[in-house]
Amino acid sequence: TGETAYAKMEKVNAELFLFTYGALVSQLLQDLNDVTEVNTQIEKMGFNIGTRLIEEFLAKSGVSGCKSFEETGETIARVACKMFLGVTGYTRNWSADKQTFSLVIDENPLCEFVEIPEHAHGLLYSNIICGVIRGALEALQLIVQVRVLKDVLRDDETNEFEVKLIQVNEEQFFGDDD
Amino acid sequence: TGETAYAKMEKVNAELFLFTYGALVSQLLQDLNDVTEVNTQIEKMGFNIGTRLIEEFLAKSGVSGCKSFEETGETIARVACKMFLGVTGYTRNWSADKQTFSLVIDENPLCEFVEIPEHAHGLLYSNIICGVIRGALEALQLIVQVRVLKDVLRDDETNEFEVKLIQVNEEQFFGDDD
Repeated sequence: TGETAYAKMEKVNAELFLFTYGALVSQLLQDLNDVTEVNTQIEKMGFNIGTRLIEEFLAKSGVSGCKSFEETGETIARVACKMFLGVTGYTRNWSADKQTFSLVIDENPLCEFVEIPEHAHGLLYSNIICGVIRGALEALQLIVQVRVLKDVLRDDETNEFEVKLIQVNEEQFFGDDD
Repeated sequence: TGETAYAKMEKVNAELFLFTYGALVSQLLQDLNDVTEVNTQIEKMGFNIGTRLIEEFLAKSGVSGCKSFEETGETIARVACKMFLGVTGYTRNWSADKQTFSLVIDENPLCEFVEIPEHAHGLLYSNIICGVIRGALEALQLIVQVRVLKDVLRDDETNEFEVKLIQVNEEQFFGDDD
């Protein structure tokens, strides 16, 4: 479970992480001076981070493979969120074909202490999470699109991400044949 | 103690932090294209982070004030390092006047998974720690200089930082008179 995996991992102070991430976003805002471009960059960085975190996830979580995309979604919400962010999320709004869902993180620690300045209107501060999910799943041969639907930093009541399965690459997935 | 404070704090996965910090440094290298400038920037970011982390430190560590700079040094090594990085450091090479010491962190988690690329020769990857110490102490009215003496990423056998007390500002320090 998420709790067990969380207990097993090496951890650092949450604020150290939050302030470091804040410094990264500020730096990008200053350098790129274009909010849309910053959003893209943040997502790309998240993608790279996700492709590396997946190994840690597989090593420590005890999760060995998901039988369906629904199970993948639940695993992200209940195990991965707890493991990496220290909070548990949940899914909702599954499409009829079970290929799209919302990941909800009511208490997104990433957004603590953050205020988006006026000149950065439109900044998707949590876009790194979209990238991490996309990168981690792509490493598992699941091609997905992820986007921010709701964001407390934009005065929504929660943080919600839409995750949409686009394609399942053949090799390795479900890992039974090799 | 460091252990108690560490247990009390909100924490995130260490690798998430490390990869995020790695992304920050890569971004700076790419944008500034000058290793010396990157070292300066990293230290400045650390300074800003330190001025904010000190509040968390005072709130959670139970440390209420140090009677001497020696005690300050030991507190950084034994309590603050554990609290924020999850590892314990130690001090050595105290100057005769007790105004300068080395902080040694044998297992600096910041350096895990990192290799400095050829084109970034001279990069002080741990310079953020110099900045954090400088920022946190300046918030306590202690003006210090901090520099990297040894760095495992530069093939030294450990990570060592020199911390030198330059000036004690009058107001608030030692907190007994106000």
